Amino acid sequence: MSQERLRRLRDVMARHDIDAVAVVPSANLFYLTGVSMHLSERVTLAIFTRDEAHLIVPALEVARVESRRQIPLTLHAWSDADWVQAGWQSLKRALSLDGKNVAVDYYGVRALELMQLQEFAPTMKLSDASALFAELRMTKDTAEVEAMRRAARVLEASIEALVPEIRAGKAEQEIAARWQWLMFEHGADGIPDAPIVASGPNSAQPHTTSTAREIQNGDLLILDGWCTVNGYYGDITRTFAIGDISDELRAVYETVRAANEAGRAAVTPDALCQDIDRAARAVIRDAGYGEYFLHRTGHGLGLEVHEAPNMLEGDTRVLKPGMTFTVEPGVYLEGKGGVRIEDDIVVTQDGNESLTVSSRELRVL
Amino acid sequence: MSQERLRRLRDVMARHDIDAVAVVPSANLFYLTGVSMHLSERVTLAIFTRDEAHLIVPALEVARVESRRQIPLTLHAWSDADWVQAGWQSLKRALSLDGKNVAVDYYGVRALELMQLQEFAPTMKLSDASALFAELRMTKDTAEVEAMRRAARVLEASIEALVPEIRAGKAEQEIAARWQWLMFEHGADGIPDAPIVASGPNSAQPHTTSTAREIQNGDLLILDGWCTVNGYYGDITRTFAIGDISDELRAVYETVRAANEAGRAAVTPDALCQDIDRAARAVIRDAGYGEYFLHRTGHGLGLEVHEAPNMLEGDTRVLKPGMTFTVEPGVYLEGKGGVRIEDDIVVTQDGNESLTVSSRELRVL
Repeated sequence: MSQERLRRLRDVMARHDIDAVAVVPSANLFYLTGVSMHLSERVTLAIFTRDEAHLIVPALEVARVESRRQIPLTLHAWSDADWVQAGWQSLKRALSLDGKNVAVDYYGVRALELMQLQEFAPTMKLSDASALFAELRMTKDTAEVEAMRRAARVLEASIEALVPEIRAGKAEQEIAARWQWLMFEHGADGIPDAPIVASGPNSAQPHTTSTAREIQNGDLLILDGWCTVNGYYGDITRTFAIGDISDELRAVYETVRAANEAGRAAVTPDALCQDIDRAARAVIRDAGYGEYFLHRTGHGLGLEVHEAPNMLEGDTRVLKPGMTFTVEPGVYLEGKGGVRIEDDIVVTQDGNESLTVSSRELRVL
Repeated sequence: MSQERLRRLRDVMARHDIDAVAVVPSANLFYLTGVSMHLSERVTLAIFTRDEAHLIVPALEVARVESRRQIPLTLHAWSDADWVQAGWQSLKRALSLDGKNVAVDYYGVRALELMQLQEFAPTMKLSDASALFAELRMTKDTAEVEAMRRAARVLEASIEALVPEIRAGKAEQEIAARWQWLMFEHGADGIPDAPIVASGPNSAQPHTTSTAREIQNGDLLILDGWCTVNGYYGDITRTFAIGDISDELRAVYETVRAANEAGRAAVTPDALCQDIDRAARAVIRDAGYGEYFLHRTGHGLGLEVHEAPNMLEGDTRVLKPGMTFTVEPGVYLEGKGGVRIEDDIVVTQDGNESLTVSSRELRVL
């Protein structure tokens, strides 16, 4: 798998006249090598040229890399005693990047690694590799989509198990912790960040974290969670009512539900990414809530919970079968509450499939 | 709290002739502002000058920032529709960094933000702010130490609850997921990464992740976990025997236990960081396992699970009361198993206190 991906990387490098690509531990490194590591204070940097693959790596990670890598990698290991200079010296004996076109993953590589790389090759010509990785990773193969379908099933099964336990008086954080545990029980292999459980006025903050607030009757309750299966993400949001909610909040709910449906219906091969945003946004604007829809309609989904493309005005990339992303319009009324309904969509030959399939009708708990 | 920290930052900036400091969402941003955010594809960048504090921030994070910030911050918000250029344009009307000495957090700021910053101020003089933040954050006040003490209690109580459930046949991942849930139950407020549960040959990889391997009689079992309370970390490792283990593994255990004790005993004000490493390493070397101790003896602990200083040869910083770090020697025999025993230590006026207090005797499960 990684061998084939590396071949495609090198095709793209040739087409863009790139001599080398530099990445740190990230989804991109995992995609190309099968090696999953954390970014840490110990410098780890992979450099892929047209015919070689090098990895500067802390000595204490060597066994892990050797056991998981799916492609040949020349390791330049450095120990805590010598620190990273030893890795760069070893690389210098194998490779020169002087005067070369070097594309760096701008979303992963830190000033830490970039400054060391510039010292290693002061005359290299630097560019951003992120568009190149977007091109590689945006279209998924059937195994990748199947992993995402399984992640969606885990999320939906865990919500069904969680819902009977939700009642007024429970704290957002308590519900979030319980949901996370239920995701593991239902087969998640990773939950890098805790889910968002946001109630009442907190639900009007699209990017909040769960708090100690106890949910109350009359609240809207947003559950927004994600997890991985085989490294690939599912990401879902459903919004619930706790007891009786106001007519205004009910109207907001139905608007967002219609916007979610319109956004999904617009997904078809050869549509542009921005078309999905336009379709969902028009419904919300026409209902008079345009200014309360604070974010893009969706984002790419795969090895990262947010990746290319953007379902947003200005993203004119063309949809192709195998592309996967979320459709998640929302409306947020400050002080009152918010609604978001999020599905994971894959483009098919003749339209789309929603990997998340649970009901989008308002459920009153 | 943050006001006082910002005052100390500005003292350090004046001493080092730094005009501005740039940080992205990270422990450093939280330390200075009280705002906890994730690094994402949406650029968020704080710039602290000698008398101002600016934040380029995505519009959908504004409500969260406003509700959590503990210091005055001038916000330069940008929406998904305009993207980050709008934030930089707003900053330009308020601030110039041309020709200034700008220290950037090399361990947080990515090529993404660095390139935008260099375009904003092409003539700035760039330096690394990480040593400056190390100086600020290394010594903890009593509230910070108390949060770490509580995190240590959570970890130890969760291990006591977990141990009766551990038996041959259970998978590492199953034990890890259960442990994580028990940490939440015992009061953790954050567990950014799943704990390491490593058994048998896997325990010989110091930085492994938990696998589907089922633990067996004769295994060593390493439990290495961390969590936060009020944002501050505890970090603990204990190693157990599953049934009868070989005499060789038992000898390794006793060696590491003695090294942990020697490392802790060396912690006293005015000792150097490297002295702690020397004390622990001497025990392991004298027992003949020197080449199997693959990492530093410990790392700073606080808002990050790894921060300054390093308990490592070459780190000649002087210990002062309030400094907090781990002591965690280990020995790893490839194919056989590994032992690590990790405690969290705070330097006191006349010696040290271990925040982790549970038994370091070999326990057979």
